[in-house]
Amino acid sequence: MAPPTQPLSINQGTLREQYDFRGFVEACARSGITAISPWRDKVAACGLQEAARLIKDHNLRVSGYCRGGLFPATTAAERQAIVDDNKRMIDEAAVLGCECIVLIGGALPVDSSGKRSRDLRGAHKMIEDGLAAILPHARAAKVPLAMEPLHPMYAGDRACVNTLAHALDLCDALGAGLGVAVDVYHVWWDPDIEAQIARAGSRILGFHVCDWLTPTRDMLLDRGMMGDGVIDIPYFRRLVEKAGYKDCIEAEIFSAENWWKKPGDEVIRTCIERYRTVC
Amino acid sequence: MAPPTQPLSINQGTLREQYDFRGFVEACARSGITAISPWRDKVAACGLQEAARLIKDHNLRVSGYCRGGLFPATTAAERQAIVDDNKRMIDEAAVLGCECIVLIGGALPVDSSGKRSRDLRGAHKMIEDGLAAILPHARAAKVPLAMEPLHPMYAGDRACVNTLAHALDLCDALGAGLGVAVDVYHVWWDPDIEAQIARAGSRILGFHVCDWLTPTRDMLLDRGMMGDGVIDIPYFRRLVEKAGYKDCIEAEIFSAENWWKKPGDEVIRTCIERYRTVC
Repeated sequence: MAPPTQPLSINQGTLREQYDFRGFVEACARSGITAISPWRDKVAACGLQEAARLIKDHNLRVSGYCRGGLFPATTAAERQAIVDDNKRMIDEAAVLGCECIVLIGGALPVDSSGKRSRDLRGAHKMIEDGLAAILPHARAAKVPLAMEPLHPMYAGDRACVNTLAHALDLCDALGAGLGVAVDVYHVWWDPDIEAQIARAGSRILGFHVCDWLTPTRDMLLDRGMMGDGVIDIPYFRRLVEKAGYKDCIEAEIFSAENWWKKPGDEVIRTCIERYRTVC
Repeated sequence: MAPPTQPLSINQGTLREQYDFRGFVEACARSGITAISPWRDKVAACGLQEAARLIKDHNLRVSGYCRGGLFPATTAAERQAIVDDNKRMIDEAAVLGCECIVLIGGALPVDSSGKRSRDLRGAHKMIEDGLAAILPHARAAKVPLAMEPLHPMYAGDRACVNTLAHALDLCDALGAGLGVAVDVYHVWWDPDIEAQIARAGSRILGFHVCDWLTPTRDMLLDRGMMGDGVIDIPYFRRLVEKAGYKDCIEAEIFSAENWWKKPGDEVIRTCIERYRTVC
C-alpha cells in the first residue's frame, strides 16, 4: 500500500511525560510535523490564549482536542456540571481552531459512598442526554464533536461507548454536529468494523493510530508504536479512505514504560518513520 | 429477583490452584455442589477413566469441559494436529458425560520465527474451518460444542471470536451441533447483547458467571467473585432464561491474587452464597 497522503498529527498524549504545551509544539514543529492534537490539561497549564498563539505561530493544524464527554454521574447536579464543563471545552476548541473535540463516553458512575453503579444501560442514557445537552452549543460554535468508542476493556471505569456501531447509533439519534473518531487500538478486534466504517462515511472526524502489543502489560498505558503490534493498520486506513476520510492520521500512544521514557525527538522521528512505512 | 433455580456448577478454573481433579470433585461434593465443569489438563493428570468414575461416584452433572478450539495456526499440518486434538477432546467429553465442550477461538497465529500474524480475518476463517472439521465427529459422539466468545481484550493472543454475534454467525454457518456459551465477564459491555441472547435461543449451552472488578489488575487472572464487581448478573440471567436456558449457572473465576489463594472450601461456600444472593 502506498504511504499515506493525509498529514500525520501527533497527539499530545504520545509525549505527555516529555513536554509541556510549548515544548510539545516546538518539538513537533522542528520535526516538520504540521498537525497536533492537544490535551486540555496541558493547554490549561499553558494558558488558552498563549496556546492559541503558539499554534498559530507554528502554523499547525489541530486535528482534535482531547478529551471531553465523561457524562455519567450519580446526581443531576454533577451531570449538569459536566455538561457545563463540556461547553467550556467547546469554547476553548473554537479559540484553538480545533477541527473537532474528541469525546469519550465515561464510566459507570460512582456515588458519594464510593459504590460504582452496575446500570450500564442507565449510563448509556446519561451519555446520550449529555451529548444532546451540549450539541446546540457545539453547533453554534462550529466545533464538531467526535465520539470515540473506546475498547470494551474500559467499559467499567473509563468509557462505556465501546463499539463504532454504538457511537453511530448516537449520531443517528442526535443528528448534525456529532461524528466519530476511529482509533485502531479500540476497534481493531471488531468483526463488524468494515460495515460500520462504511456506515460512518463522512461522519468520521478523526483517525487515530498506535498498535496493540502482545502481551499488553497494562490496560491503559501499554500501547505500542505503529508496526510493533498486531493491528493491520493499512487495512483500517483503506477502510476510512474508502469512506471518504481525508483528514489527519493521528498518532496517539500512551506508553508509560517505553515511549514516554524516550527523548521526545526520537519518539516523533519514530512516529514519522512508521507513519511512512507501516500505516 | 428470585434466587436461581438452575443448579450451580463450579468450574474447575475457580479452584485450579487448590485441588487436583479428585480433590476438586470431593470438595464440591461435600459442599453440596451437584455440577462441575472440569479442565482437560486436570482430567489428564487424574486419568480419564478415573475421572469418569469419580464423577459418577459423586453423582455430578458435568456442565461443560474446558476447553477446546484454539484453531488458528500458521501451517496446515499444525491446524490438522489441532483438529485431531479437538476430536480426542470430544471423545473424552463423551466418556465423562459432559453436557457440552467449551471452545474458544484461538489467537492470531505465531509462525516458526516467532512473528505473530496481523491477519485477523484469516484467523476467523481458520476458526470456521476448524469447527467445520470437528463438527461431524461431535455430532456422531453426541457432544454439543459451545463456542464461547471471549472479551475483545483477548483478541490478539488468546481468542479472536469476541462477540456473541460472531459466535452465532458461526452457528448459522455451520448448523446443528454448534451452540454458544455466554459468560457475563466476556459480554457484559456489549450494547447489542440483549438482541444477541434472544437470537441465540436454544443454542445457549452454557451460562458462566463471575464479576468484572474496577480496577482490573490483570487481564487474565483478576476476575471477581459474583457481587464484587460491576456486572448486573441478574440482568443476564433474565435474558438467558427468557431465551429458554434452563441448565447450570457455572461459576468460573480466575483470580491469582485473591480466590486462588484462599482455602477451597471457603471459595465454594462463597460461590454458593453469592449464587443465592446476587445472581
